[in-house]
Amino acid sequence: MIHAFIKKGCFQDSVSLMIISRKLSESESVEDVSVMMGTPANKALLETTGFWHDDFQQATPNDICVAIRTLADDATVTQQIVEQLDAALVALAQGTGNGQSLVQVKRWESACQKLPQANLLLISIAGEYAAGLAHQALESGKNVMIFSDNVTLDDEIALKTRAREYGLLVMGPDCGTSILAGTPLAFANVMPKGNIGVIGASGTGIQELTSQIALAGEGITHAIGLGGRDLSEQVGGISALTALEMLASDALSQVLVFVSKPPAETVRHRVIQAMKASGKPVVALFLGYVSPVTHDENVWFAATLDEAARLACLLSRVASRVASRVDTCAPAAGGVLRGLYTGGTLAAEASMLLASHLGIEPDPQHHHGIMLDAQGHQVIDLGDDFYTVGRPHPMIDPSLRNQLVAGLAQQPDVSVLLLDVVLGYGATDDPAGPLVEAIAKAQAGRSATHPLQVIATVTGTERDPQVRSMQIAILEDAGIAVVNSLPEATLLAVELLHPRPVHIAKSTAALLEGVAVINAGLRSFALDLQAVDTPVVHYSWMPVAGGNQQLARLLERLQ
Amino acid sequence: MIHAFIKKGCFQDSVSLMIISRKLSESESVEDVSVMMGTPANKALLETTGFWHDDFQQATPNDICVAIRTLADDATVTQQIVEQLDAALVALAQGTGNGQSLVQVKRWESACQKLPQANLLLISIAGEYAAGLAHQALESGKNVMIFSDNVTLDDEIALKTRAREYGLLVMGPDCGTSILAGTPLAFANVMPKGNIGVIGASGTGIQELTSQIALAGEGITHAIGLGGRDLSEQVGGISALTALEMLASDALSQVLVFVSKPPAETVRHRVIQAMKASGKPVVALFLGYVSPVTHDENVWFAATLDEAARLACLLSRVASRVASRVDTCAPAAGGVLRGLYTGGTLAAEASMLLASHLGIEPDPQHHHGIMLDAQGHQVIDLGDDFYTVGRPHPMIDPSLRNQLVAGLAQQPDVSVLLLDVVLGYGATDDPAGPLVEAIAKAQAGRSATHPLQVIATVTGTERDPQVRSMQIAILEDAGIAVVNSLPEATLLAVELLHPRPVHIAKSTAALLEGVAVINAGLRSFALDLQAVDTPVVHYSWMPVAGGNQQLARLLERLQ
Repeated sequence: MIHAFIKKGCFQDSVSLMIISRKLSESESVEDVSVMMGTPANKALLETTGFWHDDFQQATPNDICVAIRTLADDATVTQQIVEQLDAALVALAQGTGNGQSLVQVKRWESACQKLPQANLLLISIAGEYAAGLAHQALESGKNVMIFSDNVTLDDEIALKTRAREYGLLVMGPDCGTSILAGTPLAFANVMPKGNIGVIGASGTGIQELTSQIALAGEGITHAIGLGGRDLSEQVGGISALTALEMLASDALSQVLVFVSKPPAETVRHRVIQAMKASGKPVVALFLGYVSPVTHDENVWFAATLDEAARLACLLSRVASRVASRVDTCAPAAGGVLRGLYTGGTLAAEASMLLASHLGIEPDPQHHHGIMLDAQGHQVIDLGDDFYTVGRPHPMIDPSLRNQLVAGLAQQPDVSVLLLDVVLGYGATDDPAGPLVEAIAKAQAGRSATHPLQVIATVTGTERDPQVRSMQIAILEDAGIAVVNSLPEATLLAVELLHPRPVHIAKSTAALLEGVAVINAGLRSFALDLQAVDTPVVHYSWMPVAGGNQQLARLLERLQ
Repeated sequence: MIHAFIKKGCFQDSVSLMIISRKLSESESVEDVSVMMGTPANKALLETTGFWHDDFQQATPNDICVAIRTLADDATVTQQIVEQLDAALVALAQGTGNGQSLVQVKRWESACQKLPQANLLLISIAGEYAAGLAHQALESGKNVMIFSDNVTLDDEIALKTRAREYGLLVMGPDCGTSILAGTPLAFANVMPKGNIGVIGASGTGIQELTSQIALAGEGITHAIGLGGRDLSEQVGGISALTALEMLASDALSQVLVFVSKPPAETVRHRVIQAMKASGKPVVALFLGYVSPVTHDENVWFAATLDEAARLACLLSRVASRVASRVDTCAPAAGGVLRGLYTGGTLAAEASMLLASHLGIEPDPQHHHGIMLDAQGHQVIDLGDDFYTVGRPHPMIDPSLRNQLVAGLAQQPDVSVLLLDVVLGYGATDDPAGPLVEAIAKAQAGRSATHPLQVIATVTGTERDPQVRSMQIAILEDAGIAVVNSLPEATLLAVELLHPRPVHIAKSTAALLEGVAVINAGLRSFALDLQAVDTPVVHYSWMPVAGGNQQLARLLERLQ
């Protein structure tokens, strides 16, 4: 049978009540205990799950409804649960969690006073009350993240329009995940720092994307959630545009990645325009949208979350190398590139990829092993018959290539050199050693205004006679960029050749410098913030006028 | 000035002579020494490189031409080089390399007698002589790998046609790389053993592909080279078809990967038909050919070497798991799959991928979070508003999902279950623990004929509060297949649902059981084979009749 009681005027969030429900259900004398706020939706749920008791009829959204399923027909069971509930509520009110006391206030004004530097309100109260609270925050000049769902489309549009006007960001409603300046908000993973800025109208989309980025050894700057409806025709991607602008002007975010369901077509065009305007490499995953092209200017299209992460990581590594090279070398602008390959298929793939990046055609003739020959750029397969008459293949005898490499001393227009280093049986004992000497000769013959930058891929395994890692070490010690694949090598080559214009970075948005949070709703979110040392005040929000919205509106007008 | 002399009737391979050239060039009294066989091509090269001496006029292809560039005008220098050359040739004749003596013979018949189990002739002699030797091997029932280039197209067609007739394989001409039963032939890397069979009309293509496979932690069975012209209109892919048949009937090769330049169209169709007939997952990289589809039945198309390797590794992991599951469980054939996701975007991507694999449509309505609902298969997003009224999001409170999972005990038609496990702040402390208990309940309620197989992806990082590796360990200990991405999870699900018919494997080709090699040409190839303990005899081939082809043909007719 079901025993029941109501605790009047004691609003708590659903996660706190779930935890209390579980704890109370462990009592030996009961089968199950359900503890919920008396909202209309919850009342309906209590009915369908067989926990209904007529006493609940008069409960308001500010009252806790407790239903006890037990075989005992005995009031002492109820009394026992009443006492246990009170004890649990006292512990909550004391705000202890993770051993540290949580700063809790009951009024918005107190929250603002306790944390004057607060720049973000995190809302996870019931959806019907979220918009009102969010407007209050915007009026106080604070950004907003709305975790709550069940916010109307009209409210979302009104909030985002106002935020855009005020130069503020609204993440959500139904925004599950953000990570700003290292602070995880709501559902978020602990990420390594990196140079990838993430934007997503999808909470688990951001989580899976960032997790895959971490697994691949890279990291992020920020992850900005938008809420699932942001890219709809009606909302028009307002927050997406704000987020893109924020990350475009953030110098640390060298690569951007964007995930959402397929946007409305007009919105997609608008968002892609903003991606292009960022001037940074952007990976776009519109899950379910099949792009007719692999990339459009600086925007790369992915089909799955793991592909988006992989592309972002590749672009991230390239961007890091370009940034460090541009720092240490004179920029290579205006030069041409030369690929000197010992492997024919490696030369062919490199030519194909370079031709695509540079908008030129590979050489169809392959005369004398020349796979690409346009605008001064050349890729040569030195394993071509032309070079192997009377001498062994260049993998066995690399002397011809080494001569050609050293000869680049006299070709100052060649600014980027692409090479393969092929290991294994059959190949020469130490391809890297003499190659590094030849490169040193080439570089020694150059003036400071005409540096030669070298990119190599290594084909071979750790168990090869030459040992992959040892050959890589020789190359890297000589300042050669050793990359993992030809797509990475060719992209890096093109980026070094034509470094992107460095945008005069507008000042980074204050929100990206660090967040201080007022949390309204799930107390656990405040505890998580406290655990990572983010300044936080928990605003123990409760429905005005006992959840009677008509009365609440009246009160508001009287203020 | 150039001093010169000829060493008559002493044929050596070009690599041995390159090594000798280098050694002789180290003498203090000389600038440079060139040591080459007196072939017409080499004579031309000596002329263009400034090493010509009129004495070379009467040299035959069996004579060594030695050119010495030195400032000294003194016959003692020449005498010194003569002595050094003789010493080097004596060392070669003694066949010492890697401290082990190499078995060397001068006649084909002796080679066959010395190594009666020989099943492969590796040819790296000058191209114009290669075809004749290859025909000799085919007539003796031996397979052939021709490293040499400069073999005519007509010779290639004649050799491959004959081989096909005899049930033998011709790799090449211009075949740089093969790995058969762990034996590296010519240019080849030391690879971990695995379940991927490789075929390539591209030497460095095979090398880069296999290296990337090793880097990704997977391995190969065999890598069969074809030579770059095999897929031309004229040759028609004869060896490609033989290689595909060999690996199709090799039980250890569970996944195949194929790399070549774009074949002639008719040949492409023929090769793709053979790939389909293999009944195994095949990755096809026709470098430069853009497939209009990502896959066609069991054939997956890649655009770059690293993509081909990545796809092959994914298919390899799936195939391994399917093989081990089909061994340990009753096959799941005939059941349906269920996806119970806490993450909306994860559910959406899984639905999209499953729909594509199963040839069905995702549910456009998403009523009650149902993302896919066709043919009994269902994918549900439990984070949908429908499930979160009055209770926290399932990432916070996974009890609803755990109930649904346990309830699968009563749904024996559900044979494969797909799950996400989302970690991080906001999420429950230990999602894996209670989930594993729920799965155990579901499985305990099943009969042996209706097992439930579970596949999970984990979203989260090692630094998350729940620690990624610890959550994975809990899942794996419970027999759950934890995979890295949704593409892998969904493909595995579909493969478990519809296990490929196990082909009645024809007996594996003897060549794939192990090779014993007669090596003609580069001595270094024989030394490499000896180093990996492959039975090998070096056939010290030299041009018949001093390279006079007319005389050689006459002699052949007299035999």
